[in-house]
Amino acid sequence: MTATPTDRVLAIMGVGLLGGSVAAAAKARGVARRVIGIGRNAERLKASVACGLIDDYVADLQACDPTWDLVVVGTPVDRIATDVRDIAAVSRPGTLITDVGSVKAPICRDVGSLRERQVQFVGSHPMAGSEKRGFEASRPDLFVGRVTVVTPDEHSNSDAVDVIRRFWESLGSMVVTMSADAHDRAVAATSHVPHVAAAAVAAILRPEQRPLAATGFRDTTRIAAGDPDLWVAILLSNAEAVLSSLGDLTQSLQSFESAIRSGDATQLKTLLQAGKTSRDAL
Amino acid sequence: MTATPTDRVLAIMGVGLLGGSVAAAAKARGVARRVIGIGRNAERLKASVACGLIDDYVADLQACDPTWDLVVVGTPVDRIATDVRDIAAVSRPGTLITDVGSVKAPICRDVGSLRERQVQFVGSHPMAGSEKRGFEASRPDLFVGRVTVVTPDEHSNSDAVDVIRRFWESLGSMVVTMSADAHDRAVAATSHVPHVAAAAVAAILRPEQRPLAATGFRDTTRIAAGDPDLWVAILLSNAEAVLSSLGDLTQSLQSFESAIRSGDATQLKTLLQAGKTSRDAL
Repeated sequence: MTATPTDRVLAIMGVGLLGGSVAAAAKARGVARRVIGIGRNAERLKASVACGLIDDYVADLQACDPTWDLVVVGTPVDRIATDVRDIAAVSRPGTLITDVGSVKAPICRDVGSLRERQVQFVGSHPMAGSEKRGFEASRPDLFVGRVTVVTPDEHSNSDAVDVIRRFWESLGSMVVTMSADAHDRAVAATSHVPHVAAAAVAAILRPEQRPLAATGFRDTTRIAAGDPDLWVAILLSNAEAVLSSLGDLTQSLQSFESAIRSGDATQLKTLLQAGKTSRDAL
Repeated sequence: MTATPTDRVLAIMGVGLLGGSVAAAAKARGVARRVIGIGRNAERLKASVACGLIDDYVADLQACDPTWDLVVVGTPVDRIATDVRDIAAVSRPGTLITDVGSVKAPICRDVGSLRERQVQFVGSHPMAGSEKRGFEASRPDLFVGRVTVVTPDEHSNSDAVDVIRRFWESLGSMVVTMSADAHDRAVAATSHVPHVAAAAVAAILRPEQRPLAATGFRDTTRIAAGDPDLWVAILLSNAEAVLSSLGDLTQSLQSFESAIRSGDATQLKTLLQAGKTSRDAL
């Protein structure tokens, strides 16, 4: 936490698309002196050293020299909490850890306090991504102009939150701070439930109807093409907030159904106008 | 029906975006010798003559000389059937009438047989449009590469269907023929229910969550910005098919909800994969 950005040793745990892009952005913008990849697959880590994305790698945490002062955990969302605790167990006092998980409350809860290690964890969610996977798709500009949510909790000290905030800003992100719970409810409404709705709308299309699927259908269902395994993990990790938001959606659809069934043009227009007003406000 | 395209007198009833674009396309592609606008608002019709979109206009059907042999009715979907019958009542024997309505079964049913007039009606739905309205937004290439559905029924003779099919093809459209009922079910699934879903997803977003609405949310809800009045008319005109398709959507969402509630990763993946497979097939 005392290292200046230009003196920082950054570790990336899980060098995939997001972790690799953090590495690439940190190097491109000079906010790390050295970037260390941490993972289980030495061959993949060697390949990411060979292409210049990271400077060195650690495939065995138990046998490593923990030179880093900032760690970004970029592993799948259902592994992040365990990985944070594992890296905390070997890191030096004063090390700062953050992550890129798209769900925050379960991670922050499972990580809990790392005070006994004199290590700080502050959750992050950079809202950037791609349909592509793997470090080969990394881009140094992936975070530019994108929102990153930082979620301090009762274990976070304000200096640590400040370093994490400035770190994402230095990669080009706009940082928004909120509680992990507020974040999870917000991403349920802005991302997880829209994904479910897109998948459900896509699924009810019959093959013989495909020629009539025009731009509107394509836009509405575009995100349904995302990786099912990734989305199973996301939806189950944020189950509580997703179920609550799905309930809101179902209720709204029932209002539409009832207005259409009764031919109530006034009520139907009110419902459509509410959607339009919300969309137009973006 | 005997006029060749280059000899044709085309009438457009309702010179808005779609009707105006039919006029512009027919002139640009030489498939009408003369284009007559028909409507209630003489000022607007005069303006569309002044800008060269149409050659002449008729604001009073009772006092006109019906020189046309092909009529395209481009009025709002809930007025089309009445307008078709009104124009049929004054047209010469052999006149062919089609429309651009986005719902077909109620229109075809309400129009019924025009045999006593020796006039033929064949329904059409050119799947092209814009967020803009009014003849000022007309474009001669609006139909290029877009699907137009033509919906013959038991009153249609095959020559008439053929002329209508070739007319849309001559404007650059790809023509698909199906029954009015199959069309209405297909557009419920490909357009009307996606619109309702987009509006419902947009409506459940809270103002404080807007900063987290990224590309996925924007794509999924883009069509919710459409004109509510227009969509009230469309949804109520196709109520039966929309309610059936909304039922399918609700059922699909309930399956998602139940898989998430029970933490059933296998079932959740199956549901997400069904959406992805359907979307990837487009």
